[in-house]
Amino acid sequence: MNGAVDLPLGQADLTFRAAGDTLVRRTLLTSGVRVLSERVPGSRSATVGFWVAVGSRDEHSAESGHRATYGSTHFLEHLLFKGTPQRTALDIAISFDAVGGEHNAITAKEHTCYYARVQDRDLPMAIRVLADMFTSSLLDPDEFESERGVILEELAMAGDDPADVASERFFEAVLGAHPLGRPIGGTPDSIRSATRDAVWEHYRANYRPADLVVTIAGAVDHDAAIAELEAALGSAGWALDEPGEPVARRATAAPALEAPTPITVVERPTEQVNLILGVPGVVATDDRRVALSVLNTIFGSGMSSRLFQQVRERRGLAYSVYSFAPGYSDAGLFGMYAGCTPSKAPTVAALMRSELERLASHGVTADELERAAGQLGGAAALALEDSDTRMSRLGRAELMLGEFVDLDEALRRVSLVTADDVQSLAADLAAGPYSLVAVGSADESEFHAVIDQPAIRSDVA
Amino acid sequence: MNGAVDLPLGQADLTFRAAGDTLVRRTLLTSGVRVLSERVPGSRSATVGFWVAVGSRDEHSAESGHRATYGSTHFLEHLLFKGTPQRTALDIAISFDAVGGEHNAITAKEHTCYYARVQDRDLPMAIRVLADMFTSSLLDPDEFESERGVILEELAMAGDDPADVASERFFEAVLGAHPLGRPIGGTPDSIRSATRDAVWEHYRANYRPADLVVTIAGAVDHDAAIAELEAALGSAGWALDEPGEPVARRATAAPALEAPTPITVVERPTEQVNLILGVPGVVATDDRRVALSVLNTIFGSGMSSRLFQQVRERRGLAYSVYSFAPGYSDAGLFGMYAGCTPSKAPTVAALMRSELERLASHGVTADELERAAGQLGGAAALALEDSDTRMSRLGRAELMLGEFVDLDEALRRVSLVTADDVQSLAADLAAGPYSLVAVGSADESEFHAVIDQPAIRSDVA
Repeated sequence: MNGAVDLPLGQADLTFRAAGDTLVRRTLLTSGVRVLSERVPGSRSATVGFWVAVGSRDEHSAESGHRATYGSTHFLEHLLFKGTPQRTALDIAISFDAVGGEHNAITAKEHTCYYARVQDRDLPMAIRVLADMFTSSLLDPDEFESERGVILEELAMAGDDPADVASERFFEAVLGAHPLGRPIGGTPDSIRSATRDAVWEHYRANYRPADLVVTIAGAVDHDAAIAELEAALGSAGWALDEPGEPVARRATAAPALEAPTPITVVERPTEQVNLILGVPGVVATDDRRVALSVLNTIFGSGMSSRLFQQVRERRGLAYSVYSFAPGYSDAGLFGMYAGCTPSKAPTVAALMRSELERLASHGVTADELERAAGQLGGAAALALEDSDTRMSRLGRAELMLGEFVDLDEALRRVSLVTADDVQSLAADLAAGPYSLVAVGSADESEFHAVIDQPAIRSDVA
Repeated sequence: MNGAVDLPLGQADLTFRAAGDTLVRRTLLTSGVRVLSERVPGSRSATVGFWVAVGSRDEHSAESGHRATYGSTHFLEHLLFKGTPQRTALDIAISFDAVGGEHNAITAKEHTCYYARVQDRDLPMAIRVLADMFTSSLLDPDEFESERGVILEELAMAGDDPADVASERFFEAVLGAHPLGRPIGGTPDSIRSATRDAVWEHYRANYRPADLVVTIAGAVDHDAAIAELEAALGSAGWALDEPGEPVARRATAAPALEAPTPITVVERPTEQVNLILGVPGVVATDDRRVALSVLNTIFGSGMSSRLFQQVRERRGLAYSVYSFAPGYSDAGLFGMYAGCTPSKAPTVAALMRSELERLASHGVTADELERAAGQLGGAAALALEDSDTRMSRLGRAELMLGEFVDLDEALRRVSLVTADDVQSLAADLAAGPYSLVAVGSADESEFHAVIDQPAIRSDVA
């Protein structure tokens, strides 16, 4: 039983048992393709994902001369569903629909993942179809034009969702010109001017054997899955005997950020103001990530959290209120969200800030620490009942962390977090600089009082 | 092995095995409380739900003199989280958060359900806390006022979501003054004028032993769960030895509906128009429900469906497009949804109608029938991996259907659906009357051409 296992890029094979008596295996194929699986006893279904470490952060402005312009990665993701020499778009859809499988893809800031959840007997089919899509998509020019319309509709839908808009603007406000600050889907203009040839180049440049990571969890036989995968990749013309080295993981140093935007107001005639107040956070590989998850749990996750109690339970100011703490290879954020009536938005923003500062100056109780450990452990145990969660955990371990951490080890690390760790981290966060985003009937001037007050000193703890 | 089992209201005990070798048990306690459980081999967690057959349809206008005014049921649902003599709101939140459980409630048109998903060891706690909330909530006047603000925020959030608005207006358009046509949460006005005493009466009138149905799925020992439940109910002062008869299930006859509203436009300065076109459907207990699920699968569920292919894949007119077919005790609806650019909304609406008419006049292929069976079976098998789905299935069986149908029997029924069944049902639906709802930058006059054309005859098939 191993609690945590390093995943060195060049190592050919790894096999170990993890918490819950699952069998984890990792194989580096000659071609550079990496395959990770986690076999869950008693499972009757599986989730398989095909990953590349390419996301919206890897794109460029149209003026830069690079071909991968903003939104190209997401555009490409859509096009992979639109047909290969072997399968039309309808064939692909039928493959999964006919067995009641779930299949979809996600484009993120630092990766793209195509996945399917199917019953055990359908896993070979899922591997074959995803491999065909991954290797052999045609990016047919007519389909390209039709899909441009679909993507513009997707952007319009997101543009009509005030919480979505607030989230995108919050990333821009905190991260500024950093590549992680940009929206994942590009802009309507960048999508309108995207060309098929440029997206094709982006595809060819980033979907090579050395880029591909396949992760499978649930009812999976590792060797059989590899045989199925190699057969599919081989028949697509991939040179499986040609040695390839996996692409290096991203550098993880936190760069200096530009001065953030203190206040962003997007005026909308909506009933609520969608409000986010936040600060720069901690990168995904930072040692303080565990303390941050404890902090975020105590502060803004669940109905017993401080933010929920202060904003919703005691004052009835919001229905939805929580905090969040996304982490990437070289940037992180900490944000507090609430949707509230416009006249109360300054009050809610002030409460958010004062609660974070109270955490920094007074810390957490032993009870809160203990409850947070229980909450994180219980929630993780429930989440790991889904093979989707396990498939994603493998992908994250391989692409971002370079380490597989099972539930027992994750809980052990949580148990080591002290009240001082949490308070010290809270002090770093509370030191700002703060960015506030308000989408709705709001005016910038209302928020100056919250944003302009001097930050508490980061060494207060 | 039983595929389908009747659940007669007065029967004391039932025990049977269902597909997947689960053990289903139902007990009618002396007090009239009903307990249904489904034990799933190998499961390590459980979901428990406390149900009453009271929903928004059971409310009344303020002018009617009834105390349960619009939105009272949902208001009450919120208040059950706000404390009992034994537990404050924070205590309740901590009980579940401290073990990482999920706990929430749903108010629907015909029922209310309070539920929790927890690890197996935490099931007794979940039963105790839910029983305390169900029996002994204080509806404290101060908490009532604070929660009024929370609910107004919830309504405002829904009011800012154009798809939500379209859905609520669609129910109104098709069902008119029928009680199922009203929004679940009430209106801002009805929430502002709600009184604590009226909601208290609503609580006392509808949360009695004979109303309560408890359903539990996953890692559950039926007898132990009943012992835990009765201990909790008894200590709340419930007279468990006093004989009670479960409340009768709702009548299931389909009433005549008023003339529906043909066109509803809610003007909004949004980027997309959220469009729903639909017709009255089929009640939940109708023999044609199985044919309807096959029809809905072929027509508008999944990427291979006709609607998806016509609207998105071939023409790139929408990102989100699907059909849906909710069924209630005495009304049903069939709707087609798409979000699209305003100038294309009339085209999309016309496509929806012509596709439904094509289904009515030309029917479905044997391939489509076979694929639909595979899709429904596979999706159900995957969904039943979650104890939430099984807990809900038990509640629906007890409260609405009066029959438990396992996966094998459900698939057998699907396999009996013929192309004629689907075409005949499509003809009934395509006969209208049609209602169209558009939320966004739209004008009623654009849609007359789609709505005013005469419906095809319902005997076309």
